[in-house]
Amino acid sequence: MDIQGLLPHVLKKEVIARIEDETLYIHNRKVYPFKDEYVPCNSVEEIAQALSSMVTQGGGVLQVVLTSMLLVAKKLEQSHHPFSIDEFKNNIFIITDARKTNTTAKRVVERVISELEKDKNLTKKSIYEKVEILVTKIEAEFDAMYDTMSDIGSQLIEDGDGIFTTCFAEHTFLLSLKKAQLMGKKIHAWVPETRPYLQGAHLTAPSLVEMNIETTLMSDAMAAHYIEEGKINRYMSALDTLTMDGCAANKVGSLNNAILCNYFNIPFHLFAISPDTKKKRCEDIIMEERDPEELLTIADKRITSREVKGIYPAFDIIPSHLITGIITPKGLLAVHEIEKLFRNKEI
Amino acid sequence: MDIQGLLPHVLKKEVIARIEDETLYIHNRKVYPFKDEYVPCNSVEEIAQALSSMVTQGGGVLQVVLTSMLLVAKKLEQSHHPFSIDEFKNNIFIITDARKTNTTAKRVVERVISELEKDKNLTKKSIYEKVEILVTKIEAEFDAMYDTMSDIGSQLIEDGDGIFTTCFAEHTFLLSLKKAQLMGKKIHAWVPETRPYLQGAHLTAPSLVEMNIETTLMSDAMAAHYIEEGKINRYMSALDTLTMDGCAANKVGSLNNAILCNYFNIPFHLFAISPDTKKKRCEDIIMEERDPEELLTIADKRITSREVKGIYPAFDIIPSHLITGIITPKGLLAVHEIEKLFRNKEI
Repeated sequence: MDIQGLLPHVLKKEVIARIEDETLYIHNRKVYPFKDEYVPCNSVEEIAQALSSMVTQGGGVLQVVLTSMLLVAKKLEQSHHPFSIDEFKNNIFIITDARKTNTTAKRVVERVISELEKDKNLTKKSIYEKVEILVTKIEAEFDAMYDTMSDIGSQLIEDGDGIFTTCFAEHTFLLSLKKAQLMGKKIHAWVPETRPYLQGAHLTAPSLVEMNIETTLMSDAMAAHYIEEGKINRYMSALDTLTMDGCAANKVGSLNNAILCNYFNIPFHLFAISPDTKKKRCEDIIMEERDPEELLTIADKRITSREVKGIYPAFDIIPSHLITGIITPKGLLAVHEIEKLFRNKEI
Repeated sequence: MDIQGLLPHVLKKEVIARIEDETLYIHNRKVYPFKDEYVPCNSVEEIAQALSSMVTQGGGVLQVVLTSMLLVAKKLEQSHHPFSIDEFKNNIFIITDARKTNTTAKRVVERVISELEKDKNLTKKSIYEKVEILVTKIEAEFDAMYDTMSDIGSQLIEDGDGIFTTCFAEHTFLLSLKKAQLMGKKIHAWVPETRPYLQGAHLTAPSLVEMNIETTLMSDAMAAHYIEEGKINRYMSALDTLTMDGCAANKVGSLNNAILCNYFNIPFHLFAISPDTKKKRCEDIIMEERDPEELLTIADKRITSREVKGIYPAFDIIPSHLITGIITPKGLLAVHEIEKLFRNKEI
């Protein structure tokens, strides 16, 4: 299926990140849906800064990194230095280092570098063209994976389902709901606002409404209320890191949600392109702590007195026993199948 | 113990509600701690309006109702109508009807009316004085109950505890922590901001800091993260309605928290002055749905696009099997003891 046509505004490739002249423009998810603004970045340091300040997040980071590789290659092609693949590597790793928990982007970069390093004919003149071929190929592969994964997601969804999520689960989640709806299933999405950044309110709910899916926004601790009432009967979300033992890192609040689903015995499914094969166990996940000021303010207004201290762990770790299944490009997997199916290969 | 001296600013009686001339001033919890403002009310309708728009909440409602009875009596004393206790009743019930889930205030009003109705010598001249005697007596009784309940709470707290709460649990919760600290126990309070109204951020965290208790503010779905890490090991909160079968209604999000405590096997204690003896079972609790606009905005700023719909159930119902114990003026009770101990008497 042509998934690009089904996607909402914020997930269109050229919206997430595009190059004009030598500037990378990143769609600013922090001001959406109130403003449709793009943050101009003129250096890898500025791109890294934009990522670490959460101008985009989740799969947005992958698209920014893919587009950034084109920009880095273009600048390399035009530079006066002697050609060195190390310069490409150093530049692009400044960007991937900005969001340590997002390992998909890092793995994609490593794959491009490995291909470039194998290429004995690589020169300053050919680098842009070669990176472009690799990036286009990777983008097509991701689209195919999103298509497969959302086929699985849409089949899991049943007529009449109330589906609960967290944060902004992007392509796979949104496409699963849209495809289920196109199959004639009546569905309702229940979206927690997702503090501190409110991605549920800013991105997920407006995107679902744009896609004509019935949607209700709620605060982050209301889901239990609606599961108890029978209005919510399923959970689907993305994840940031999956370990080989089937443990997931995702937006803080995800552990809370997994415990609710466990208590009420409703399915808790997560979408994952691939595990991080270097991370064998839960304990290998690198956690980000973020600036508590981000919790203590909403839309630049302080929510408590000056004397109060806050805390902001960016991610939760969800133990495998709370996960019903992982929706991957290789199919719907039980957590114990991850290790076997991805042992020698990751995407 | 003189509890008034230990209480933070927002819980001082004269701060919550006071009469000046014929105006009742209610402390505006919606703008605290940024502003220390009082909403002037010149009629019972204005008081009811202030309560239904959440100018104050929880135990604040009780204090407003107690002070309102003085105001209504004063106006009755000065009125040109022939004296009728019905006029007192009609006026005060306009106020209690504004917050149907808060049954403590309603019960206190019914008790005052019953005392007044028994009084054969009640006249227009004596009503203010008699109401004042009853209100003063009731205030002293509540102070004594807060003192007893916070003694129990402080004894339950152990040295090194990380205590998690919801919303603004007021006197009993704050005094329990303060007394535990005065007993030499090292404690740390973990306060969820409590969307949509942010009472945790606006009231609980600043009050705890004012009382010199170590406090960390977090968002509403972060508690699981810190229970898992071992930093939170206890939950204590107030409740709005307790049924005779040990089922509790409290701020939406409370069911979520009870499920977390159950999963991690940490104590979940609630403070209750009394059950509502007219409510035999869970199903008898009257639930309030509030205006979804209150969820869709923070500090008057919209948090999502115009097209997105929201929902705001004000309360959760917590089934008795998730409650470790109820801290009452009659002691720490297991849920099954409520019916027996309060069968023929409520406060």
